[in-house]
Amino acid sequence: MLSTTLVLFVFSLQGQANPEIHEDQRVTFRIKAPNAKEVTLSASWMPWGQAAKMEKGADGTWYFTQTSLAPDLYWYHFTVDGVRTMDPENTHLMRDVGTLWNIFLLGSGQADLYRVNQVPHGSLAFRWYESPHNEKARRMAVYTPPGYESDTRQYPVLYLLHGMGGDEEAWIELGRATQILDNLIARGTIKPMIVVMPNGNVVQEAAPGKGSSGLVKPTFQMPNTMDGNFEVSFPEIMNNIESHYRVRPGKSSRAIAGLSMGGFHSANISRFYPQTFDYMGLFSPALHVNPDVAVYQNAPEQLREQQQNGYRLYWIRVGENDFPQLLQGIREHLQQMDQLDMPYDYATTSGGHSWENWRKYLVEFLPLLFQD
Amino acid sequence: MLSTTLVLFVFSLQGQANPEIHEDQRVTFRIKAPNAKEVTLSASWMPWGQAAKMEKGADGTWYFTQTSLAPDLYWYHFTVDGVRTMDPENTHLMRDVGTLWNIFLLGSGQADLYRVNQVPHGSLAFRWYESPHNEKARRMAVYTPPGYESDTRQYPVLYLLHGMGGDEEAWIELGRATQILDNLIARGTIKPMIVVMPNGNVVQEAAPGKGSSGLVKPTFQMPNTMDGNFEVSFPEIMNNIESHYRVRPGKSSRAIAGLSMGGFHSANISRFYPQTFDYMGLFSPALHVNPDVAVYQNAPEQLREQQQNGYRLYWIRVGENDFPQLLQGIREHLQQMDQLDMPYDYATTSGGHSWENWRKYLVEFLPLLFQD
Repeated sequence: MLSTTLVLFVFSLQGQANPEIHEDQRVTFRIKAPNAKEVTLSASWMPWGQAAKMEKGADGTWYFTQTSLAPDLYWYHFTVDGVRTMDPENTHLMRDVGTLWNIFLLGSGQADLYRVNQVPHGSLAFRWYESPHNEKARRMAVYTPPGYESDTRQYPVLYLLHGMGGDEEAWIELGRATQILDNLIARGTIKPMIVVMPNGNVVQEAAPGKGSSGLVKPTFQMPNTMDGNFEVSFPEIMNNIESHYRVRPGKSSRAIAGLSMGGFHSANISRFYPQTFDYMGLFSPALHVNPDVAVYQNAPEQLREQQQNGYRLYWIRVGENDFPQLLQGIREHLQQMDQLDMPYDYATTSGGHSWENWRKYLVEFLPLLFQD
Repeated sequence: MLSTTLVLFVFSLQGQANPEIHEDQRVTFRIKAPNAKEVTLSASWMPWGQAAKMEKGADGTWYFTQTSLAPDLYWYHFTVDGVRTMDPENTHLMRDVGTLWNIFLLGSGQADLYRVNQVPHGSLAFRWYESPHNEKARRMAVYTPPGYESDTRQYPVLYLLHGMGGDEEAWIELGRATQILDNLIARGTIKPMIVVMPNGNVVQEAAPGKGSSGLVKPTFQMPNTMDGNFEVSFPEIMNNIESHYRVRPGKSSRAIAGLSMGGFHSANISRFYPQTFDYMGLFSPALHVNPDVAVYQNAPEQLREQQQNGYRLYWIRVGENDFPQLLQGIREHLQQMDQLDMPYDYATTSGGHSWENWRKYLVEFLPLLFQD
């Protein structure tokens, strides 16, 4: 057996990566750059394009201390004399579309849901499925809950979709989905479920670097992301999952949710296959984008069919500071639903079009699923 | 169906990330740093500690062009006025212990084995197993070959171990193991197999950031990595795999291999459980390290037992420029084997203690396994 002394020793050896998090939750950033003239800190809690000036200490290290951050996952980078620089003392990164950011976790409460805790862990698999419609094999991430591999139960499935510029890794990296699932299952507040995170950009096989186009540069806007091809080919994903996993059959055991473009996809897929999902989650959905292609026509008729078939939850959340066009798109969607007497659970929250909100929405949405 | 035009369009949209790879395989690195006084390039093909000076162009971009690199996976970073800087135009990174490096793939031939190609892909799962011996749950990576999820066959298993400072992600990130496996299976030169990549540092639950100690700073040397605890607790991993996967039973369907410390672990585990593995692969094994703990005693008696039980392959490779102490350790191990009339396949190669060699060794070793 390992002694406690040795275990404590390694914790102190490994240390906390940068930034330094003080007991009172102040956060100190530092980077050694003796020759630099100006160093700034850019971070996820600052308005877009803003940065904080750092101060140079006598030893050539630049400092900045941030106070009053709420518990959450945050990201940042330095800019040293105009050059975007990752923190050399923090190897923990995430990619948001085409840029990398250092990450850190601050505080308890909400942030505890985003940590790896000593609770039973589900498995995360990266798998490929054949997509004849899109003429390629495509990659997806699949979370199976703790116990899945040892028991013989059937599980309900949530299909969880990313936004524009994202891919099958977005909910895992930026959304902390596996940690949220492990932690909420351990608390007993959500049902154990399978969560499928596909890639919604049908021109891609996989996230940049994970497919046969090589170590390409990621881009925000790709063709064919909102032209109906993802929706039309969605059964390829469902059929693959339902034939390879112990899935509880039927609409009452299927949910679909997504952020931004993924909210748009969720709305379209759920009405396009109106007898398939009992739970819809639209997180800051980009419903104002409505390309002029066949699959997006007949929305009122399909919504009517979805209404007639019945469902348990149509859940919509958006930040009050989100883009006006997006807010308008949601209002129009709600009007359409009102005209059809379709029930929904709609609320605005603080904040805007951000992962801070989408992680919170996921935490709120999951306990509403499969509770019967 | 997607039109070819659109598919080509997105490839050009996504572009090649930095660095620029010319048709004649020269590689141009660039970074915009108008205010910098000195910018250098450090890279995996340079001797440790060396860097190449870059030249400043009129537009404030610094350039360096490298010629005559063999096809391979390479890594690099910039140093801008003394600050270690990731390439802002390349989001593809890997972590080597506590430092990050940008990566790129160059050329064909050997490098084609390291690419994601349009071949059937296996699945890669991150799973946790209970380790009562080490008093924690621990994470491992498991590759299952294409077809595993659709057929009902039983598969042989390779346990593939990392070196000091590595973890369950090392063979995937630095070793390109999933790409090598997919590609060699597609060529028909290796048997489809399950490959288990555990974490050999028993003080860790998981790779830094993936366990409950949080976003810690990775360190090279950890306590308890070579004190016998990994070897003694190894059956916890095997039992977990054999009870959750369709594993072909018996010693003729089990292989164990590893690099450096993982070679040391492979040698020890295979003689400690002398009736368990028919295939051993020692890649640049650190056999000269032989702590004075019980599990490492009785090596000659255990080797004798391993010899008497028989095995099919004891494969050892090392670069001729590896550390003298390590080379000496291998010589002593071979002498011990000679004394016991134990057959082995030993050769030195060019190069030293490097991932360049370990990827090549894996490519050479895999076709020798389970060929009956």
